[in-house]
Amino acid sequence: MIDCGEGTQLQLRRHKFKIQRIDHIFISHLHGDHYYGLIGLVSTMNMLGRSSELHIYCPPQLRDVIEMQLKVSDTKLRYLLTFHYLNFVSGELLFENEAVTVQSIVLKHRIPCSGFIFKEKRKEKNIRKDVIEKYRIPLPAIEQIKKGSDFIQNGGQVIPNNELTVPLKMPRSYAYCSDTAYSESIIAEINGVDLLYHESTFMENKRDRARETYHSTTLDAANIAKSALVKQLIIGHFSARYKDLEPLLMEARTIFENTELAEDGKSFEVSVGALSYDN
Amino acid sequence: MIDCGEGTQLQLRRHKFKIQRIDHIFISHLHGDHYYGLIGLVSTMNMLGRSSELHIYCPPQLRDVIEMQLKVSDTKLRYLLTFHYLNFVSGELLFENEAVTVQSIVLKHRIPCSGFIFKEKRKEKNIRKDVIEKYRIPLPAIEQIKKGSDFIQNGGQVIPNNELTVPLKMPRSYAYCSDTAYSESIIAEINGVDLLYHESTFMENKRDRARETYHSTTLDAANIAKSALVKQLIIGHFSARYKDLEPLLMEARTIFENTELAEDGKSFEVSVGALSYDN
Repeated sequence: MIDCGEGTQLQLRRHKFKIQRIDHIFISHLHGDHYYGLIGLVSTMNMLGRSSELHIYCPPQLRDVIEMQLKVSDTKLRYLLTFHYLNFVSGELLFENEAVTVQSIVLKHRIPCSGFIFKEKRKEKNIRKDVIEKYRIPLPAIEQIKKGSDFIQNGGQVIPNNELTVPLKMPRSYAYCSDTAYSESIIAEINGVDLLYHESTFMENKRDRARETYHSTTLDAANIAKSALVKQLIIGHFSARYKDLEPLLMEARTIFENTELAEDGKSFEVSVGALSYDN
Repeated sequence: MIDCGEGTQLQLRRHKFKIQRIDHIFISHLHGDHYYGLIGLVSTMNMLGRSSELHIYCPPQLRDVIEMQLKVSDTKLRYLLTFHYLNFVSGELLFENEAVTVQSIVLKHRIPCSGFIFKEKRKEKNIRKDVIEKYRIPLPAIEQIKKGSDFIQNGGQVIPNNELTVPLKMPRSYAYCSDTAYSESIIAEINGVDLLYHESTFMENKRDRARETYHSTTLDAANIAKSALVKQLIIGHFSARYKDLEPLLMEARTIFENTELAEDGKSFEVSVGALSYDN
């Protein structure tokens, strides 16, 4: 999960998420709308009997805030709560398992703030069952073919990998950038992601206010999306002054057509990548 | 306002309360369901431009928790936030103005916990306009009559106060007792209040669980209400295990008939007291 504003546990319940399945929480920065709900979630997980470790990736001070609140209520968690500190100096690998990596991105805000990139790992290819028998491929060769090798028959004839394997989907990627002023330095880091969430607190006519508060306008977000050649953009974190969000969407789309609004309860699927015939 | 669990500011907005009209917040104890929403409310009041002082009556550690959270977000409040510490040893006067007093009540919970009694003050009586002329009552005597005196005419004849004034409503009182185990020591303090909110976390068949967790059962609450001769009882703070609350209400009513359930969004009026003909 990324960020955890006040009432997050209520929203999770409302949308039927299983909160105990959350093992990793990434907190971008310490403005309240991004973390005030964390202590409640941590407490509820405990009351519901959690025993498995929970990892929190966050600014160092958040540990003090959470631990102080556990202390004043005389609460001893029955699960391990592990804090991993963000550095806010350069992007780094925060988490990795067999399926994904998560990296930080340094954003530009009034206080230290980090974005996050989630990248699927490239999987091993699946070999076509029929070709194993057809070419009598031995076990060691199968392992190599899954990694992308061609197969060389006894007679020296080369069967290209593409003929032996099922095409893989391209690994998907998602970048989350909130809160931040317009920052060109993130473009290289998020280059080509399938889905970019970028804050758009203001419309373009509030550019001065955006600059003062270290936030972005719709056009900032759309320009970042365009320069980074991302496939889809979601804008969000709108100022409470905007009751109707359509104008923000329309303005962003003048620069970047494939833009959508982040609204409560909406879900987006990171579009499955194109088939890859490369190794 | 009494207590401030997570999401309180959202509920206040949903029910169209004007949050800036809240000047005094009483926090009973430092379990999360009673205070996790305070930092969000304090921050939102600031963002919406509050300038008037906000008073918080609470356990001393809450000040550290709030101030740490303001510090890590580099927030300087534009209004004065004043903390008043509860003592948890004996009931004391916390607040007083021309209309009401607020006193604390020592409750019995796993960590220090306080209840609160709100009492309207007895107002000055209104003098009947017609009698002023009829008896030619001079100004100094009017002031005395408003305070309850009779009027003595020049001839020595006594006009009783009741004939000179409009009957007053009895001042109303409300007591809030959550969270607490059954505690007879509160009975004297809440004696005769018009409305008592008392927690009933469990039904009677979970008495063991109530004892372990320093909570009350429906019958505990009803017995307190009965012994203290209160006029109406509201029970609340129900364990999440109870999806249907009717059985809790029915059980409490076996002991104390005038009982109601505290449910989200409900409001109760403290019934206006009987007319008072006494001085």
